This record gives sequence, structure tokens and C-alpha cells, in this order.
Amino acid sequence: MDPKALFNISYGLYVITSKKGGEVNGQIGNTVFQISNEPPTIAVSINKKNLTHEYIKDSKTFAVSILSQDVPLNLIGQFGFKSGREINKFEGVSHKIGNSGVPYLTEHALSYVEARVIQEFDANTHTVFVGEITGAEILSDGIPMTYAYYQQVKRGSVPPSAPTYNKKEEEGTVSEKYVCSVCGYVYDPEVGDPDGGIAPGTPFADIPDDWVCPVCGAGKKEFEKES
Amino acid sequence: MDPKALFNISYGLYVITSKKGGEVNGQIGNTVFQISNEPPTIAVSINKKNLTHEYIKDSKTFAVSILSQDVPLNLIGQFGFKSGREINKFEGVSHKIGNSGVPYLTEHALSYVEARVIQEFDANTHTVFVGEITGAEILSDGIPMTYAYYQQVKRGSVPPSAPTYNKKEEEGTVSEKYVCSVCGYVYDPEVGDPDGGIAPGTPFADIPDDWVCPVCGAGKKEFEKES
Repeated sequence: MDPKALFNISYGLYVITSKKGGEVNGQIGNTVFQISNEPPTIAVSINKKNLTHEYIKDSKTFAVSILSQDVPLNLIGQFGFKSGREINKFEGVSHKIGNSGVPYLTEHALSYVEARVIQEFDANTHTVFVGEITGAEILSDGIPMTYAYYQQVKRGSVPPSAPTYNKKEEEGTVSEKYVCSVCGYVYDPEVGDPDGGIAPGTPFADIPDDWVCPVCGAGKKEFEKES
Repeated sequence: MDPKALFNISYGLYVITSKKGGEVNGQIGNTVFQISNEPPTIAVSINKKNLTHEYIKDSKTFAVSILSQDVPLNLIGQFGFKSGREINKFEGVSHKIGNSGVPYLTEHALSYVEARVIQEFDANTHTVFVGEITGAEILSDGIPMTYAYYQQVKRGSVPPSAPTYNKKEEEGTVSEKYVCSVCGYVYDPEVGDPDGGIAPGTPFADIPDDWVCPVCGAGKKEFEKES
């Protein structure tokens, strides 16, 4: 069995939110799918260790914000690489509270769906929550973010099959990549970090010292040269 | 609730196969997702009316062939718009039989995954089958077919937001689209049907009479002018 065979399965990228009492939380997820039209149901798969899992278990309610391809990496970092046990995930993030009391993103989201849990399936490390849809609205026009696009383009890693790969490697230190030791984000000088004000073509050494990892917010000193 | 809000959820496109006794069958599906790494499990959602549903229920085994973006429409038509109760889905299709006795495609597929059902979830019109992965191999390099790409590009329909849309409409009959009354495929002269030997720019009237719908195989006379 070759685990890489599974990498060809297509996924989107979402912020999945819930509530517990007066608290709200959210996390990045890629496993969201419609499951039936009669009644309209949607399913999400959530790791049991996550705070959002605890919240959905408690309130039996969740919402899905479908991310746009233009979502900045730091938003993915805030929802995907930090825990709601330590930070308020919604600080600085435009959002509204839906009819079910669960928040959804109003920026960098194309639409949202909210649902009431009607079934739960135990999948060992994860629970699949199936929800009857109680609300769904389009928020903006755009192209949905996919997991493949995030991996290939937004994280700045270039697959060895890309035509420019070997050529750039031969150019030496100007193209040296640096890896965030906190979240694994790879800074690729060829791509830069346009969202963070770093133009494509900027070597790592020339990045200002106050620059932070666009995914998880770690400082520049947390980066190590890619081995 | 706006059902269109759900259209932004991302899916791939797959041929899902199974067996019953000595018989094999397969169908197009878009709901396939990995569910856990411990143990490696994959889930598929199958309409209860489909023959493949009956086969998976019986043999507790299924395989997923992950389609490549270059898959010809007639292969999608054969697996997606015809029933295994009437035709042999694998006729003329390159395939092999996996370790579990279930076939998988060896052309136009990037990889395949086979699995033994360990859980079933009733989702009204559909059953979600969760399978422990028993085999998975990469078959070829390429870009996975997504449902969005199929809708937007392969079916030849152009969204109103496309820059050429209004311009082409003004050109009159040369750009008139025709809809297959059997499966809903739209023939768009601007796109043509390159897989079927019809160059982009060919008006419907100029298509040879022996041309058939690339999706379902219906004859040219089954097409109606788009209203």
C-alpha cells in the first residue's frame, strides 16, 4: 500500500465553527461534504482532540465557512495552527453570528452553511458529525480554496516536477528555502510572501526582522534552512 | 437558505467499484474522503438506488479509482449515466482486478484505493460506507479531476461571468448551444467536443450525424436547442 495514492483525493478548505455555552471556537478543516438532499445534510470530520470537537458534542451545532482562494495565510494559521484553548480565534477576524448562535466568517469566505447535528459516527481518531442544514447563504463571488491549491501555491512549495524547480536550485543561496519550525511552513524566495509584504525573489536573509510566519505567526528566528 | 451556497464545497471525481458473487460493477461518485490514519480508513457516499450500493452491501468491499483531469467524457457517461443493470460498465475500459476481487481503472486514473467495509451509516437517500484500506497504489502522474473542473470545462458550459460569454451570445446561431435530452450535457460550439473529433468553433448543425453525446452516448437527434 502506497499512502501517497490517497493524496489525489480532492478536498476544499474550510473554517468549521461551533459554540459551547457563551463560548465560540473554530478550526480549519478539509473534510466537508454534502451527504443527501432529502433532507439537506452536510457532514464534517473533526479530530477528537480539538476544542471544536468538544463544542460540537456539547451544542450539537456547527457552521462551515467555505474559504476563498484569496484567504491570507495568517488566517489559516490562526484557525489551523493555534488552539482555542489559548487564543480567541476570532480576534481581528470579520465574522457574524448565525441563527444557530455559531459564528461564520464574513471575509475570505464564499458562503457559509450552518447545521444541527442529527447523527454522529465514531471513526476512531475522528468523529463524523452529520448535520441537517438550518441555514446557508452566499457571501461573495470567487474561487473556492482547495487543499491542493493551498499545498502547492499558498505554502510556496514547488513540486520537483515543476519546470523551474531544478533551474532555480542551481542558482544557489538566493533560492534557499527556510522552514518554520513551529508549523512547517516553507518560505520560498521564488514565491516570497506577498500577503506579508515580501515580494517574490526576496532571499530569506533580506526579509525584515519583524516579519512573522504567515501561517502560525512565529518570528523569523524560528525558521531553519531547509535541509 | 440558498442551496447554491453548497456549490462552493470542493469534490473530486471518482469511479467507485464493487462486486457481488462473480459480478462486478462501478459508478461515478464525487463523495470520497479519508476519515482517519489510525487505521487508514476511507469513506464513500452511495445512493441506495444504485447497483453499486447493492454490491457493496453484499461483498463489504469497494475500490475507488481517482480520475485524472484528462478523462474522456464518454468514460464518465458510461459509468455515470448508464446502469450496470443494463450494460457491462467495464466493456472497452482498461482495468485490473485488485487483491479484494474488485476492479479498478488502469487508464485515466491517477491512483486507486481498495477497502473493506467496517462501518455503514444510513443517510436517508444514501449510505456512507467506511472502509479500512486494504490496498492503494499510484497508477500515473497527472492532475486529479475535480467536480468543479468537470462542470465548468469538460461539460462545455461557460458561466455568465466568463469574459467571452456575452460577446459570443451576440454572434447568433453559430454560438447556439444544444442540450442532450438524455443526460443534460450541453454542446457549446465555442468549446466543441475535441474528444469526439469536433473542433472548437463548430456550430451544432455542422456536426456529423453519427456523432453521439460524449457523456451518455445518445444520438445527435436527442439534442434540443438550449432555451
